[in-house]
Amino acid sequence: MAQPQQSEGVEATSARAASEKPSLRVGMVGYAFMGAAHSQGWRTAGRVFDLPSTPVMAAICGRDASAVRAAADRHGWESTETDWRALIARDDIDLVDICTPGDSHAEIALAALAAGKHVLCEKPLANTVEEAENMARAAEAAYERGQLAMVGFNYRRVPATALARSMVAAGRLGALRHVRVTYLQDWLVDPEFPLTWRLRRELAGSGSLGDLGAHIVDLAQYLAGEPLAGVSALTETFVRERPLPGGPSSGLSAVSAGGTGQVTVDDAALFTGRFTSGALASFEATRYATGRKNALRIELNGERGSLAFDLERLNELAYHDGTEAAAHAGFRRILVTEPEHPYLDAWWPPGHGLGYEHTFVHQARDLVHAIAEGRRPDPSFADGLQVQRVLAAVEESAEKNSLYTPIAA
Amino acid sequence: MAQPQQSEGVEATSARAASEKPSLRVGMVGYAFMGAAHSQGWRTAGRVFDLPSTPVMAAICGRDASAVRAAADRHGWESTETDWRALIARDDIDLVDICTPGDSHAEIALAALAAGKHVLCEKPLANTVEEAENMARAAEAAYERGQLAMVGFNYRRVPATALARSMVAAGRLGALRHVRVTYLQDWLVDPEFPLTWRLRRELAGSGSLGDLGAHIVDLAQYLAGEPLAGVSALTETFVRERPLPGGPSSGLSAVSAGGTGQVTVDDAALFTGRFTSGALASFEATRYATGRKNALRIELNGERGSLAFDLERLNELAYHDGTEAAAHAGFRRILVTEPEHPYLDAWWPPGHGLGYEHTFVHQARDLVHAIAEGRRPDPSFADGLQVQRVLAAVEESAEKNSLYTPIAA
Amino acid sequence: MAQPQQSEGVEATSARAASEKPSLRVGMVGYAFMGAAHSQGWRTAGRVFDLPSTPVMAAICGRDASAVRAAADRHGWESTETDWRALIARDDIDLVDICTPGDSHAEIALAALAAGKHVLCEKPLANTVEEAENMARAAEAAYERGQLAMVGFNYRRVPATALARSMVAAGRLGALRHVRVTYLQDWLVDPEFPLTWRLRRELAGSGSLGDLGAHIVDLAQYLAGEPLAGVSALTETFVRERPLPGGPSSGLSAVSAGGTGQVTVDDAALFTGRFTSGALASFEATRYATGRKNALRIELNGERGSLAFDLERLNELAYHDGTEAAAHAGFRRILVTEPEHPYLDAWWPPGHGLGYEHTFVHQARDLVHAIAEGRRPDPSFADGLQVQRVLAAVEESAEKNSLYTPIAA
Amino acid sequence: MAQPQQSEGVEATSARAASEKPSLRVGMVGYAFMGAAHSQGWRTAGRVFDLPSTPVMAAICGRDASAVRAAADRHGWESTETDWRALIARDDIDLVDICTPGDSHAEIALAALAAGKHVLCEKPLANTVEEAENMARAAEAAYERGQLAMVGFNYRRVPATALARSMVAAGRLGALRHVRVTYLQDWLVDPEFPLTWRLRRELAGSGSLGDLGAHIVDLAQYLAGEPLAGVSALTETFVRERPLPGGPSSGLSAVSAGGTGQVTVDDAALFTGRFTSGALASFEATRYATGRKNALRIELNGERGSLAFDLERLNELAYHDGTEAAAHAGFRRILVTEPEHPYLDAWWPPGHGLGYEHTFVHQARDLVHAIAEGRRPDPSFADGLQVQRVLAAVEESAEKNSLYTPIAA
Repeated sequence: MAQPQQSEGVEATSARAASEKPSLRVGMVGYAFMGAAHSQGWRTAGRVFDLPSTPVMAAICGRDASAVRAAADRHGWESTETDWRALIARDDIDLVDICTPGDSHAEIALAALAAGKHVLCEKPLANTVEEAENMARAAEAAYERGQLAMVGFNYRRVPATALARSMVAAGRLGALRHVRVTYLQDWLVDPEFPLTWRLRRELAGSGSLGDLGAHIVDLAQYLAGEPLAGVSALTETFVRERPLPGGPSSGLSAVSAGGTGQVTVDDAALFTGRFTSGALASFEATRYATGRKNALRIELNGERGSLAFDLERLNELAYHDGTEAAAHAGFRRILVTEPEHPYLDAWWPPGHGLGYEHTFVHQARDLVHAIAEGRRPDPSFADGLQVQRVLAAVEESAEKNSLYTPIAA
Repeated sequence: MAQPQQSEGVEATSARAASEKPSLRVGMVGYAFMGAAHSQGWRTAGRVFDLPSTPVMAAICGRDASAVRAAADRHGWESTETDWRALIARDDIDLVDICTPGDSHAEIALAALAAGKHVLCEKPLANTVEEAENMARAAEAAYERGQLAMVGFNYRRVPATALARSMVAAGRLGALRHVRVTYLQDWLVDPEFPLTWRLRRELAGSGSLGDLGAHIVDLAQYLAGEPLAGVSALTETFVRERPLPGGPSSGLSAVSAGGTGQVTVDDAALFTGRFTSGALASFEATRYATGRKNALRIELNGERGSLAFDLERLNELAYHDGTEAAAHAGFRRILVTEPEHPYLDAWWPPGHGLGYEHTFVHQARDLVHAIAEGRRPDPSFADGLQVQRVLAAVEESAEKNSLYTPIAA
Repeated sequence: MAQPQQSEGVEATSARAASEKPSLRVGMVGYAFMGAAHSQGWRTAGRVFDLPSTPVMAAICGRDASAVRAAADRHGWESTETDWRALIARDDIDLVDICTPGDSHAEIALAALAAGKHVLCEKPLANTVEEAENMARAAEAAYERGQLAMVGFNYRRVPATALARSMVAAGRLGALRHVRVTYLQDWLVDPEFPLTWRLRRELAGSGSLGDLGAHIVDLAQYLAGEPLAGVSALTETFVRERPLPGGPSSGLSAVSAGGTGQVTVDDAALFTGRFTSGALASFEATRYATGRKNALRIELNGERGSLAFDLERLNELAYHDGTEAAAHAGFRRILVTEPEHPYLDAWWPPGHGLGYEHTFVHQARDLVHAIAEGRRPDPSFADGLQVQRVLAAVEESAEKNSLYTPIAA
Repeated sequence: MAQPQQSEGVEATSARAASEKPSLRVGMVGYAFMGAAHSQGWRTAGRVFDLPSTPVMAAICGRDASAVRAAADRHGWESTETDWRALIARDDIDLVDICTPGDSHAEIALAALAAGKHVLCEKPLANTVEEAENMARAAEAAYERGQLAMVGFNYRRVPATALARSMVAAGRLGALRHVRVTYLQDWLVDPEFPLTWRLRRELAGSGSLGDLGAHIVDLAQYLAGEPLAGVSALTETFVRERPLPGGPSSGLSAVSAGGTGQVTVDDAALFTGRFTSGALASFEATRYATGRKNALRIELNGERGSLAFDLERLNELAYHDGTEAAAHAGFRRILVTEPEHPYLDAWWPPGHGLGYEHTFVHQARDLVHAIAEGRRPDPSFADGLQVQRVLAAVEESAEKNSLYTPIAA
């Protein structure tokens, strides 16, 4: 293992690259699961895509000094902070990327926008509609000042879902009749799994609803190209008491300490609904579907065709062209790895699939472009707020014996 | 094509067979789609299974004399009737098999039971709860007299669903958390498809709900081994006016005549619910799922395992054993064609699959056994009534803005 | 259980039907697995399809008088014979259906043709090329006299394979590049499985080659629409000694007696080859593919498209249309249950699948039509002979260290 | 876009990290498809895994100065070289990573080993057995001096294939009977696709055989845990003349210039073989399988179980446990995303899949570990040589009319 010695005549390329393009200096708050995923996104986006500016992993922030330092080393952030207010106060930060639990989203995002930063905020946008309204309002005002605010519904950035959206937008489904969506996981099946922050209402806002339900509500509305008009819901907490966790956890894995505590969020949420066009929708979010690990499945049926997607097979999109002769029609499995497909011209040859983390690379790419072009990011905080309103209607309906509850506009 | 000449010394086997076993003489009312399917069942059951009595296709009944005669010739019934009352009056009929639309089930079944016949009645048992109550009451009284009455939920007789039931009953799923069921077809997507009897409330009772929904409610409760406690529902009629049909139709295909009429049933029904154990359920029945032809799909998630079935691949059952080590666990595709599997020891070697119509062969087999043994048939008219109550609660909830509606006990 | 009493005024339909159409009186030799399957075919064909003549299950023949009588009762044959020569001598038999092991095919078929009967002979046509040549010659001569001879490659009668053939014939694949076929079973994996007739060369002719290989050679050539020009082969017998069987067996299941015997056939056969057009082919037939029950899988790749079929999912055909835009192309799963599909207009609504035995119903249907129209049946004995020549070339190549061996024309 | 200003009190983490661990300075030759993939591997490995040393992307080398500079910028290499000899001469390079076409592998690798560098060489190891022998010899000698040499069969690093290997090694398949492997692509189906370097024998050595066949021979032997003993082969060039390419190409996409040239490599290679244990193998490598994009599929059947893998669904492994009761047995789909699975504890929660490029991250990880521990890398140049001998035997057999050809030991 030699010591680096720059030999004469060898041009230092990194310096030169930096001089050509402006940089976009990112400060990230939070360093657990989402922090790791966002780090991959920021590190890779400029290496794969031609970006108008170069993301720089400037600073990472967390309360535990040694833990955040370790995260910085691991993920390659240039510096650390232990107070998000200090991070926001830094002049050398252009964009604040919020990867904390939902209870702190509003405060951090509002402060960052006030400080003139662009913001990327993990989903769900907030734990309450009121917070989300404040955030959307602040984002709109900031946009007038040239700042952008995006919410991290990364599943819009799977090439297959992006392709699906473009096919719906091109009219390939015709009048929409049905959208059915499930997001099935199984990490709470074991009643001895401990009470992580994701199971406590004061931190997580809600359970499967805010975590999984937020994703599928956003994805369903995004793919349908229209909002839900109302919902009818059932929620349930199957295991109401769980062991207290023994140490820090990222929510999906944890060790128990001793004693037990109350689960104060939903384990599962089922809801039906109507889109504004009259299409029907069915949703299920659960962490108790034994054997299903990340089964975000969505199917859309329209008068002219259907589409189906399963996150466990994220390089594929199923498409039925209802205008084909019946004798040769069928759901086709599009392997979404062609250069013609969204994001794919920058990646590998056909058939060489992508993975989960690539959604964060694409998210970073799309945000960098939006910032450079001054375009509203998609999804915006307003979109995040609208999802929040759907989730609130779900909770309201569940409390009112499943009564159909309109979504506030 | 020679004329039959019985050569000397050749024993006529059919005469001998008849003498050894009692026969069970069947009279069937109706001869459309279900009539054809039931005919296959009666013709084949005794050829494949060792039955305690021999089903004889004694008489087929329909209002149109020439059509019923053609059906008799085609399907191999010994005689015809044009009035079901005449059929029931015949002394040589042991069992009346009712394959008519739902509006006539109650009247025929009640008369047949009163006349001392066993009864097999297609699903849904009736068009109203009141009719179904009368039928269940009459069936119970008849049972005291030694007569049996079964309702034709044939999807319990798919080897894969029967295997699933036995696995649930053996505790392989543990505490049940979720049951999700869809029955997706697409034959109404075309708004020019004519207004067949299945789209008229006065004949069919309801639309996708009674046709498809009845199947999935029964199958879900059968597999779960427990009844639903309540439901919350949405229903919709996407295409409210359709061309009038031009001639006789079997419901799934038809030619248009001229003029249009109102569709008076639901095109789609979505409902969620709770089982008595607290498990959650999700149901969707529709005829507008473009590209889905017969997608009755059911998945059950329990604390110890999961099962999944798709009628479009009816020789398969997916099973996840949640007690396996995570490193080697996964949904396995059981090819349900082994001699150890339900019904299969009488059929073909492993891997040589069965089809849709075999469910009717199995239904005939099971009913013949139940009659011989004096056992209550499964599913009974009481089971059919209970399904009817669920469907009624679905309709009530749909009318009450999806309000959660308990199932009457 | 009433005694049958024909009530006055009820017309006996079966008598009338017989008078309208000529009958085709069938005499079947053999009553094991294939006998049961053919019985289902003859019993059902006239009930589902409009046939120009009515198949009558006139006589079944086997050496064991009580066993053949039981088979006649079970399957519904009118009479029995214990000597196939007596069967052939009967004036009231129009067609002889040969379901015996391969070593007796030639003798029975030649005698039946000489006696003026039509013949349906199970595959493989014979145990040697020489026998098959005699049979093909005799069939050709008989055809001049108005008799038909068909070989029972029933897998041509799966709706999905018939659809595949029509798509290839219509040019949807363009110039053919690859055909890859496997027929994988696993019933010999257990070394304690006994030495049934299928494992003895003097009875079966060969092992997996003649049993499974014959099917896939025929199907590959049928779908490709052209013959193989030559092959290179490896064969293997993994377990060379097995327990002697304890009693009668149908070949796929058996009980052991005591003592062991030599396995004198191949357990597995692998071969590659060239079609006359230059397309490449790959074949594998084995009874040692643990977990594969009946995995006859074939894929064809052409310049314009591809097709794939798996017998374990026999209601499906996968089709890739290579002329589609890459962005929306993919293998589509055609559910081959539409009325537009081969054989399907006589069966059930879309999505209501068929099973293995339906291939025998379709075989009976096609043969009855061919006889009525005087058309050469497809596949003919000449086709069976050609398959036999391929199998002989496979064995020759395997003996010559896999040397590429041309197929005799 | 702010200018970077390190705020007071913020610790520069990258400097500190470098001081703690030794670095491993990599110099890469080649910057096309493989260069991009290896770059992702080197950039990411140390960010995800705890490595004993830190890979540094020190230098990238290519003949075209401006192109290599662009590649350095894009992929993040610190410096560039235009002569691989200069790269090898640099003191600050610890490891040479060879991503050039096969004709230059031997020369570069031998020089790098002679210069005291570790070497990672893309597959196939060389274009001839002779070259590969020299390389394996040099690697063995270098190993004595503490240098490591690995060949880049990255498909061993898919978590699913690594899991498969561990399951075979643990005896879960028992005595091996069958290995069947295909590697199907379709990028040459269009006869107008131009004559890239991959289609010229003098550069690529062979066609589908060296490109795809090398992968599947290595993977089959790796998973089986034993070498092939001999092969029988057919090869074919379907399109013998193609347009000349118009510019630089990475082999899988290209633009045509004008004029045509001869294709001097195989388009497809089919071969059967025997493993030393007597298990049978079947291989097919082709670029003409319309609709198959990257279908590297391998199935192993053993006396106790079976495994199957498809690179187009690389997060899954199918496993049949032949010791299970038949009633509940079936191929299970293991979603290979659990922390218990190879490489996965460093990545995402269950169900959040990886992609193609992760194999290069894992390759980098494994090589860094091997170097730190002084372990022979796996696969070694000796393994690469052995694959080369199999490929040579395939070509020899194809030339000798498919005669079975033993593999030189």
